[in-house]
Amino acid sequence: MQVDRLWTNGRLMTMAEGAPGLGAVERGAIACRDGRIVFAGPLADLPAGIDAADHIDLDGRWVGPGLIDCHTHLVYGGNRAKEFELRLAGASYEEIARAGGGIRSTVAATRAASEDDLVASALPRLDALLAEGLTTIEIKSGYGLETDAEARMLRAARRLGGERPVSVTTTFLGAHAVPPEFEGDADGYIHSVCREQLPAVAAEGLADAVDGFCETIAFSPDQMALVFDAAQAHGLPVKLHAEQLSNLGGARLAARYGALSADHLEYLDEDGADAMARAGTVATLLPGAFYFLRETQKPPVEALRLAGVPIALATDANPGSSPLTSLLLTMNMAATLFRLTVEECLAGVTRNAAKALGRLDEIGTLEAAKSCDLAIWDIEEPAELVYRIGFNPLHARVWRGK
Amino acid sequence: MQVDRLWTNGRLMTMAEGAPGLGAVERGAIACRDGRIVFAGPLADLPAGIDAADHIDLDGRWVGPGLIDCHTHLVYGGNRAKEFELRLAGASYEEIARAGGGIRSTVAATRAASEDDLVASALPRLDALLAEGLTTIEIKSGYGLETDAEARMLRAARRLGGERPVSVTTTFLGAHAVPPEFEGDADGYIHSVCREQLPAVAAEGLADAVDGFCETIAFSPDQMALVFDAAQAHGLPVKLHAEQLSNLGGARLAARYGALSADHLEYLDEDGADAMARAGTVATLLPGAFYFLRETQKPPVEALRLAGVPIALATDANPGSSPLTSLLLTMNMAATLFRLTVEECLAGVTRNAAKALGRLDEIGTLEAAKSCDLAIWDIEEPAELVYRIGFNPLHARVWRGK
Ligand SMILES: [Zn+2]
Ligand SMILES: [Zn+2]
Repeated sequence: MQVDRLWTNGRLMTMAEGAPGLGAVERGAIACRDGRIVFAGPLADLPAGIDAADHIDLDGRWVGPGLIDCHTHLVYGGNRAKEFELRLAGASYEEIARAGGGIRSTVAATRAASEDDLVASALPRLDALLAEGLTTIEIKSGYGLETDAEARMLRAARRLGGERPVSVTTTFLGAHAVPPEFEGDADGYIHSVCREQLPAVAAEGLADAVDGFCETIAFSPDQMALVFDAAQAHGLPVKLHAEQLSNLGGARLAARYGALSADHLEYLDEDGADAMARAGTVATLLPGAFYFLRETQKPPVEALRLAGVPIALATDANPGSSPLTSLLLTMNMAATLFRLTVEECLAGVTRNAAKALGRLDEIGTLEAAKSCDLAIWDIEEPAELVYRIGFNPLHARVWRGK
Repeated sequence: MQVDRLWTNGRLMTMAEGAPGLGAVERGAIACRDGRIVFAGPLADLPAGIDAADHIDLDGRWVGPGLIDCHTHLVYGGNRAKEFELRLAGASYEEIARAGGGIRSTVAATRAASEDDLVASALPRLDALLAEGLTTIEIKSGYGLETDAEARMLRAARRLGGERPVSVTTTFLGAHAVPPEFEGDADGYIHSVCREQLPAVAAEGLADAVDGFCETIAFSPDQMALVFDAAQAHGLPVKLHAEQLSNLGGARLAARYGALSADHLEYLDEDGADAMARAGTVATLLPGAFYFLRETQKPPVEALRLAGVPIALATDANPGSSPLTSLLLTMNMAATLFRLTVEECLAGVTRNAAKALGRLDEIGTLEAAKSCDLAIWDIEEPAELVYRIGFNPLHARVWRGK
């Protein structure tokens, strides 16, 4: 068989489902044709007659799936560093609001930004993630909170995938916060999300999924159910920011709608975990937000394990509660703060992150027929990727075989 | 005047002592001759008749002093990632010790390593720090715990300064832990530190300072006093790991010896802070170790402020309790976890870090006569350096004018 590229002499972490641990393969080989993996396994099992146009010796390096960030708000206008500075200097929330801080400042700056502006300001953040071996990223809207600005955010997100060799999946998050013009009328805003924003975004094919923020300071389960109904009417899968600051039963709601994932989950209870397990809903943990907000309530990792809920990890990259653009650091935080194991951390940014995007058939493991997205590491053992803090041992990144 | 290089059109954070805030200068210029700053201030104040061989337009970028990491254990043998993995998987300390973990594993690996090995393994860690604008680093011994291996660590540390464009200052830390061959005889080991190791290291000019670990699990204040006496006999300044896990009065001891710094300080009391203030001893906070060890007792930042103790920040880069190689992240942790202000964080890795090394006359601020060590940043405001997590906006690094 003719292939485009053949990597040999690598140590693979295939992350294949069902394989023990990381699915490690010593003296492994990977063959790629037309951007897809046609073989990944022990060199000894490589089918005879493989003829490679290009042959790369991995020199014993570890190779895993390209990393996947399955929950980000990477596209936005403005900068909240000043607000951070004021808060540390002792300013009250009121003073910060008066100084133009808070999510409303991001909404105002995002509405004022052109699509070009949004792309340009997101690129350095994307580049930081790419430098660590990222090959797929989910990007949400949610700072426009009106049809035009939401659509512009999603167009900017799609364009990022043309500016860099990376797969972008987009999520419509109109139900992120109540915008100023609907203050005191969350129901009215949800109506506009369902009847105006979502249909417009869906008609243009701008969103791969629909998300919302279910919390006392945002939207109720009943309001989110309306958004999910609208999403289903447009044939779009759903996900939910749930149980971050309190337990409203958002995860159970998400499970009822067969959600791809429920995210944050600090206040999830066992019933919620069981509901997620039955629905096949992934738990996406966001330790960057937990760290940055100095939360103390940890997500119920043991309950998720017992229920058999797959755990994904993501940066939650956003200007207000997680200005984090490192998946390696996300893994370290998940291990250090939430006590996830090395194996759970690595599965969280590969296989289970793919599952949280509904794309496990295409990405997330080193298996035949999947996209040839690789991260090649200068490490002695995979645990180093989780253990070290502020250190990037990426040797090379491969996206669709290149 | 003829100068080698002139930077114009920059926004300076001079960090000069006594200047308000960051000592910010809009439309600033920096002139360098023979590796030293001959002017740093408003372009309008640049002396007439400056003739620059090389002129660089900073395009409005922010420029500050090169970063200084004033407390690291960067040189060591081995790797503790496996131990981290085992601990997350639920292994007990006993099981980890049986599997060869703990500080003794680092001591064994360091003793077994050649000087070349030690240099080679430290270089990637050093490079991670350099990529963020580091221009000076302190490196301690302390994993040899016998004369030859301690001296080899310090020689390796010195050599790192030849391998990369960076200033290295070295600290002898023989009093780091009791080695296996002295188990149960800490006094006997301290005797060998004072009478064998320190004289040998001093005779070879390998150490710029002497440090120790004052803690119930390490050495008592009385034992440390013997080491400090020996240091003074050799004309070497001292510093101390103090009050990390309990309050033994280590900071007061350090102050009595006019220590450059006392480091960690989670359990420091007000008397200790006052003693440090009177002695001019810098408080070096190490948020990476606090984070990695999941400590809950925070250093008494308010007491340090009230007493007027200068606060430095450092990575504490080491394999056991802080596998951290990012000063940007160190600043974010100090702000997020310890509530230091942006100004305190930036002073902590520049001016006050220089003070903690006894080198404020040479480095740490942008002022005439100091080494021309610069970090040039792609940021809109200095707060971004503290606010962002896992993001490196360094545009360029300059060491001794180049
Ligand atoms: Zn989010
Ligand atoms: Zn230390």
